[in-house]
Amino acid sequence: MNSVSSVSHYSPDHAGLQKALGVLKQRFGELFQDSNALREQHAHTTTYLPLQMPDAVIFAESTQDVQDAIRTCAEYKVPVIAFGTGTSLEGGVNAPYGGISIDVSRMDKVLKVNSEDLDCVVQAGCTREALNVYLRDTGLFFPIDPGANASLGGMAATRASGTNAVRYGTMKDNVVNVTAVMPNGEVIRTAGRAKKTSAGYDLTRLLVGSEGTLGIITELTLKLYGVPENISAGVCQFPSVDAACQTTIQAMQVGIPIARIELLDGLQVKMVNAYSHLDYAEEPTLFVEFHGSNAGVAEQIEFFTEIAAQNGGSGIQWAEKSEDRNRLWKARHNAYFAMLAYRPGASGIATDACVPISRLAECVAETQKDIAELDLIAPIIGHVGDGNFHCTPLIMMDDKDEVRRAEIMIKRLAERAIAMDGTCTGEHGVGQGKRKYMELEHGSGWAFMSAIKKAIDPDNIMNPGKVIAD
Amino acid sequence: MNSVSSVSHYSPDHAGLQKALGVLKQRFGELFQDSNALREQHAHTTTYLPLQMPDAVIFAESTQDVQDAIRTCAEYKVPVIAFGTGTSLEGGVNAPYGGISIDVSRMDKVLKVNSEDLDCVVQAGCTREALNVYLRDTGLFFPIDPGANASLGGMAATRASGTNAVRYGTMKDNVVNVTAVMPNGEVIRTAGRAKKTSAGYDLTRLLVGSEGTLGIITELTLKLYGVPENISAGVCQFPSVDAACQTTIQAMQVGIPIARIELLDGLQVKMVNAYSHLDYAEEPTLFVEFHGSNAGVAEQIEFFTEIAAQNGGSGIQWAEKSEDRNRLWKARHNAYFAMLAYRPGASGIATDACVPISRLAECVAETQKDIAELDLIAPIIGHVGDGNFHCTPLIMMDDKDEVRRAEIMIKRLAERAIAMDGTCTGEHGVGQGKRKYMELEHGSGWAFMSAIKKAIDPDNIMNPGKVIAD
Repeated sequence: MNSVSSVSHYSPDHAGLQKALGVLKQRFGELFQDSNALREQHAHTTTYLPLQMPDAVIFAESTQDVQDAIRTCAEYKVPVIAFGTGTSLEGGVNAPYGGISIDVSRMDKVLKVNSEDLDCVVQAGCTREALNVYLRDTGLFFPIDPGANASLGGMAATRASGTNAVRYGTMKDNVVNVTAVMPNGEVIRTAGRAKKTSAGYDLTRLLVGSEGTLGIITELTLKLYGVPENISAGVCQFPSVDAACQTTIQAMQVGIPIARIELLDGLQVKMVNAYSHLDYAEEPTLFVEFHGSNAGVAEQIEFFTEIAAQNGGSGIQWAEKSEDRNRLWKARHNAYFAMLAYRPGASGIATDACVPISRLAECVAETQKDIAELDLIAPIIGHVGDGNFHCTPLIMMDDKDEVRRAEIMIKRLAERAIAMDGTCTGEHGVGQGKRKYMELEHGSGWAFMSAIKKAIDPDNIMNPGKVIAD
Repeated sequence: MNSVSSVSHYSPDHAGLQKALGVLKQRFGELFQDSNALREQHAHTTTYLPLQMPDAVIFAESTQDVQDAIRTCAEYKVPVIAFGTGTSLEGGVNAPYGGISIDVSRMDKVLKVNSEDLDCVVQAGCTREALNVYLRDTGLFFPIDPGANASLGGMAATRASGTNAVRYGTMKDNVVNVTAVMPNGEVIRTAGRAKKTSAGYDLTRLLVGSEGTLGIITELTLKLYGVPENISAGVCQFPSVDAACQTTIQAMQVGIPIARIELLDGLQVKMVNAYSHLDYAEEPTLFVEFHGSNAGVAEQIEFFTEIAAQNGGSGIQWAEKSEDRNRLWKARHNAYFAMLAYRPGASGIATDACVPISRLAECVAETQKDIAELDLIAPIIGHVGDGNFHCTPLIMMDDKDEVRRAEIMIKRLAERAIAMDGTCTGEHGVGQGKRKYMELEHGSGWAFMSAIKKAIDPDNIMNPGKVIAD
């Protein structure tokens, strides 16, 4: 290619859409639904982006169903949007050009657990919690935990991660292969189950993070891990956010294999306390968890406690019993709802900066300065072991000036993360909300993403309006 | 795309080639070489594939040099083949359609060590050994070790791994970003240095393993690790290859984080003894290494010793001092030369099966049956913790019947690995030698690789004749 051409804007064809709807209704019967309520539910987005409804929803029950739906959509050039649990934060399930939402939530089976190989095969609609319930008696677990009880297919599609990623990696590291229906209706399986392969281009990792714009994932093989002999979680307060960040940086640098290390600023702790009926000191806080053998965890804790103390950290308050530990992490996972409850009527605008860990403290400090200067309410919470944090301005969307100030803060944060050789989206994906930063972040690389999109989906039917340029 | 079209066969254009050679000679002066000796050296292949020389060699000294060379080649549609150290096993540096070999071995600098972020930036021609020498006083190291002292750019391009991959992953897991010159001459950097990102398609992992067919890597950011407090290596003999495989499988299943676990069959041990002047018992053997804290390694060793004993393994003979450990791994790394020395005049034909670990023992056993049935000399050595092993028939290439029998064995092995949901190439790449198995291994996925190739390199100038279909 001498010049990288961009993907053409999707142009809806009303007659084609009507024909497709007719064919799909006939093929899918009760699995085809076009009530307003269902369409609206499938444009669900948990952020400030407006709802954009699909024209109909198909409840797929098999890869064959997805294939049949996509073949029809391809024939009539109708957009196809994959839907799992609808927990995307960047408008991933919105349908800006209408089209068909393919809901895979009924494809929720665990198809196979290969305990000898430490992997399992699941349908795309199986959620991470359902998988872990299924695995309960095997001594194995799937670690990736983005908070929401998301579908595993959706987690793969957005390259999700979350609290455990600091130790276990992201979906990129834990998806062995995917089965996907491609825009021309062909079904591919991107790899076998070998632990490694150098057999050509890495289609697995091309589809992981492609957000339904290259194909729809219907099945996936995931890595599993043995449940550690010892899991210890606790809470530690610090005199400043900087001290908590420095503790994190130093712990990572000396190589402590921490399983989770989550920062909450004082405001966020206050919100969590109120929502989850807890009484943590309302100061910058790290929630930490260690996994390993008894001896290994003891060693990790010893190292960590020393580093925390050097930075002025309190002694760690341990969640000794598993129910205390669950309460701790549930409170952490409910942080988003705690924020919303703290300022009724406000929208929380998710941000997702991720920077090299050496820049973390500086990135957080400059962001806090912005928050103060712009007079915003914006708690900070983050997967700081990965250099990733979420600062979430709580905004009254009808207060134009507040919206404007929030936009300034968000733009500065995204640009700051990129300038620090990081990313504006560590784990939430691009969707609609982050497209505007992609050229700044990727430079000339972004056009190559468009070229790949165009090669695989020349009619731009797969989740149009997401990830790449229109 | 309604039907995936394949990439067109490269058609050399003699007049265009001559013009390109003229322009490049003028631009590069002494850095442009077209002597027969240098051309032949740059078609070096350490396997049975024939040498196919490029028309000229350019010794690039910067990304700018690579860019200028590629721009000229793009203009005249002349093939471009990247060359690092020439240790590819599947004909990766061969030039079946002639063209320009771009030798990056002079781009050998470590540009930056970000010790706080546990990463470093290197030029593509820097070798893994040179990097580790450079890091010697930092307390950090780069673990990926394919045996050969390969260039890091080449290792990324072939998605290399080797003995340490069982613990540290492959190049896929350890390349943070690459800078690459694309077929249209544009320079892209695939990502920043954040530990995670969900900002669009994973161009890093698309280029890792693309074997120079999509772009030429000129710089890369790599993950580093703290040198473990304790490194313990040893050797353990078993009554059968199966017993050694079972030990490996069980050790992986209980989650011992072994840093290396290498199987050698009795024949291979005999060859290694002769070549490296050692006196190991000539029985199926595991070379193992453990990394961690003192307490952690003691725990790993205790678990492993117990599992080995249950499978009839001997006590572990420890390589206590670091020079003994180096001698052990040097002997392992010289296994290929030991094979060749064992049967002077023979060619070693590298194979690279990788299967889910639950199928490893069966795959090795069936392969051994073939070796016996076909009356071949073919030692087995492998990274068995990953389910990956190399069985290398030593063949007198002028003995047509022996060549025929070896081909039967190799074909059966590749097809067996694929049938077991594995791959015929765990770490050597596709190159020329493994292309014939790609359709069997990937099914309809292979055509999507061709579609990506065509989108990014429509004139097929980047390493034509490799990885994908002509």
